[in-house]
Amino acid sequence: MESIIDRRQRLLGAATLFYEQPVQIVRGDGVLLYDETGKEYVDMYNNVPCVGHANPTVVEAMAKQMATLNVHSRYLHEGILEYAERLLALHHDGIESAVFACSGTEASEIALIMARAATGGRGIICSDATYHGNSTEVIKMTRAGMTNQPSDPDFRAIPYPQKFRPLTPGLDDESLCQLYLDKISNALNDFNQQGIPFAGMFVCSIFANEGLPDIPGRFMAQATDLVHAAGGVMIADEVQAGFCRSGDWWGYETTGFQPDIITMGKPMGNGLPLSAVVASQDHIAAFRENSHYFNTFASSPLQAAVGNAVLDVIEQQDLKNQSATIGQYLRDELNLLLPECDALADVRGCGLFVGLEWVNDDGSADRKGAIRVANLMKDKRFLLSNAGANGNVIKLRPPLVFEKSHADRFLQAFREMLSEY
Amino acid sequence: MESIIDRRQRLLGAATLFYEQPVQIVRGDGVLLYDETGKEYVDMYNNVPCVGHANPTVVEAMAKQMATLNVHSRYLHEGILEYAERLLALHHDGIESAVFACSGTEASEIALIMARAATGGRGIICSDATYHGNSTEVIKMTRAGMTNQPSDPDFRAIPYPQKFRPLTPGLDDESLCQLYLDKISNALNDFNQQGIPFAGMFVCSIFANEGLPDIPGRFMAQATDLVHAAGGVMIADEVQAGFCRSGDWWGYETTGFQPDIITMGKPMGNGLPLSAVVASQDHIAAFRENSHYFNTFASSPLQAAVGNAVLDVIEQQDLKNQSATIGQYLRDELNLLLPECDALADVRGCGLFVGLEWVNDDGSADRKGAIRVANLMKDKRFLLSNAGANGNVIKLRPPLVFEKSHADRFLQAFREMLSEY
Repeated sequence: MESIIDRRQRLLGAATLFYEQPVQIVRGDGVLLYDETGKEYVDMYNNVPCVGHANPTVVEAMAKQMATLNVHSRYLHEGILEYAERLLALHHDGIESAVFACSGTEASEIALIMARAATGGRGIICSDATYHGNSTEVIKMTRAGMTNQPSDPDFRAIPYPQKFRPLTPGLDDESLCQLYLDKISNALNDFNQQGIPFAGMFVCSIFANEGLPDIPGRFMAQATDLVHAAGGVMIADEVQAGFCRSGDWWGYETTGFQPDIITMGKPMGNGLPLSAVVASQDHIAAFRENSHYFNTFASSPLQAAVGNAVLDVIEQQDLKNQSATIGQYLRDELNLLLPECDALADVRGCGLFVGLEWVNDDGSADRKGAIRVANLMKDKRFLLSNAGANGNVIKLRPPLVFEKSHADRFLQAFREMLSEY
Repeated sequence: MESIIDRRQRLLGAATLFYEQPVQIVRGDGVLLYDETGKEYVDMYNNVPCVGHANPTVVEAMAKQMATLNVHSRYLHEGILEYAERLLALHHDGIESAVFACSGTEASEIALIMARAATGGRGIICSDATYHGNSTEVIKMTRAGMTNQPSDPDFRAIPYPQKFRPLTPGLDDESLCQLYLDKISNALNDFNQQGIPFAGMFVCSIFANEGLPDIPGRFMAQATDLVHAAGGVMIADEVQAGFCRSGDWWGYETTGFQPDIITMGKPMGNGLPLSAVVASQDHIAAFRENSHYFNTFASSPLQAAVGNAVLDVIEQQDLKNQSATIGQYLRDELNLLLPECDALADVRGCGLFVGLEWVNDDGSADRKGAIRVANLMKDKRFLLSNAGANGNVIKLRPPLVFEKSHADRFLQAFREMLSEY
């Protein structure tokens, strides 16, 4: 008989699967997941179900709206306006209007088109270990960071700012910050010399895929100034960073800058495909005029109802505070393990997004070790993963309803794993 | 006080709205929609809610799955495999594997990347009045058909095949077909001369946006042969044509060809964002290898549950037969109006997709008239729209649960409208 893995291979091709022995998940409840044999796992990975797996408030809002109306946005509907107003009020002044979409990739496409329409430029600066989506244009940002891929002249990758493996060791914080800022200036000069008009800089507000680095100095604010001085716009990818993941509402608050264009996605609909781009009325107008954009499934009554339900739960349960405090607790406790575990070289992150730098004896990135930890912790019924530019950062990113009791349960198992590692 | 239209403009920018006096829809039920004052409209436009607005089978499947589990696809789950198997079985042999996504644009991106990965080419032939989505790469197909836009060298637009306004009048069916086929040969030669390796031809199986033309001869099958002989793949966009809209399961059955890569979307999830690309195992493998594609919200238990529910209703209510028979009834009755209405020059389409060619006295396309009809019919509580290369085709495309009684109600109102026009 064909195994489920073989059947999946036949029907879906070589789509990525987690773990050496993949898990089959059949049910979720809050931060807990259950496999087909009833085994319980603590979910330390999934940011999308931010208010918890199978959240009843979200389920009810979804079912109620779907039983009432779900239709495209070329008729008038109060729902999406109410949701847009509420979402925009969570951002700083100057963020005035919204474009809705279904996925993070679609939001990145909109942001690129918007930045280019608003500035008349086309050159984009991104980081050298980024991922903003998988479309033909958006994936160019990922490819720009890969030395073994021909890069598109419109995209320049700069080294992402970090303190752990700095470009030049031994510098003070301000000098290191300046070193990374100089890379932006170099890219701007290069665009200028090649006659490629600059459009903007596109970065995750917390450099999540890069490995959640500690960012030197006031890099983000100063980078924004550089971008503005060159006539460009600053685009913040809040697809992973946003909706209280960082302990603030938005990652850009945590890392201290005010972006011009903001993309949001993953946790917005607790699993319903829902993403958005917000910006000034002028930028949105430039985008609309240039693109005549329409998205069949977006700005729908269903997206609005579910998006509102997610905001309701975040606010009612004060998950912003929970993300900040439980995340800090996790990092404080994990920091205590630094002296007793040579492989654990750094504990970092913000809110309920924790990165653990896993290293070899010589201090080099230990990707294999991080993968081994993910598999060992899975056997102990905790689902987590590895990430980062070198794949050696153990990533803890549970649903925001993750509580201190879950953290303690995880910390005990993690210590056990270390003693057996 | 700010009107809802002004509020929408402020919050969403100049996003498209239907009708001179837009309608505010608050509730749906089957083929009926209701505005905020309780006025009832017959929906003759919406293909997405194919099994009807607020379909209880879909609502229940969605709520049940969302209350059980909805998570990304890097864990094993039976749901998406069962759905993929069922979906693939509805296509011809050789269509073996699937890639899921959220929107039609995402499906078009996947199809383009797949065609290029599978062939090693990059040149794409499309029609001159097409729309396959709004991403930076996919919109190039639309722009290739616009004479006032600089076209991308990788995309060549050919005149879409049609009998109503043929490239050369007076030809017999076979000669006219050959004329359109020659345009493909010219594009292939042009790619060849410019050293652009050919990837494939990307068309809607029924040329829906072009205006639902009657296609001369065996154009689609012969075009497929030409494409194959040049080493390319034939990509069928079934986003509008599929899921029994054409009276067959797929538009390519109605227009008589066997595509290599097939995109699906709109009606798949009755409003849940759900799209897919299906092809041979080899094509899917080439795509996976080239792209390392992952989509957070796609291939999910939620998409699978809702997709299965939609197929359940289509099969249980035999909506394929309903689409074919009620669609034919509509066309037969509308054809009877041809002698008495000079502006109505042609009645065409397939299944529950009807196009009415609206013309001026001199026979030229009357876009303004078609828009006027849409507005007049809205006042009579029937929602429809205009479409086509010249914007003069009145488009009737109701949910598939549209019945003879709805058709009769529409026909009576349409006759009334004509008498007052």
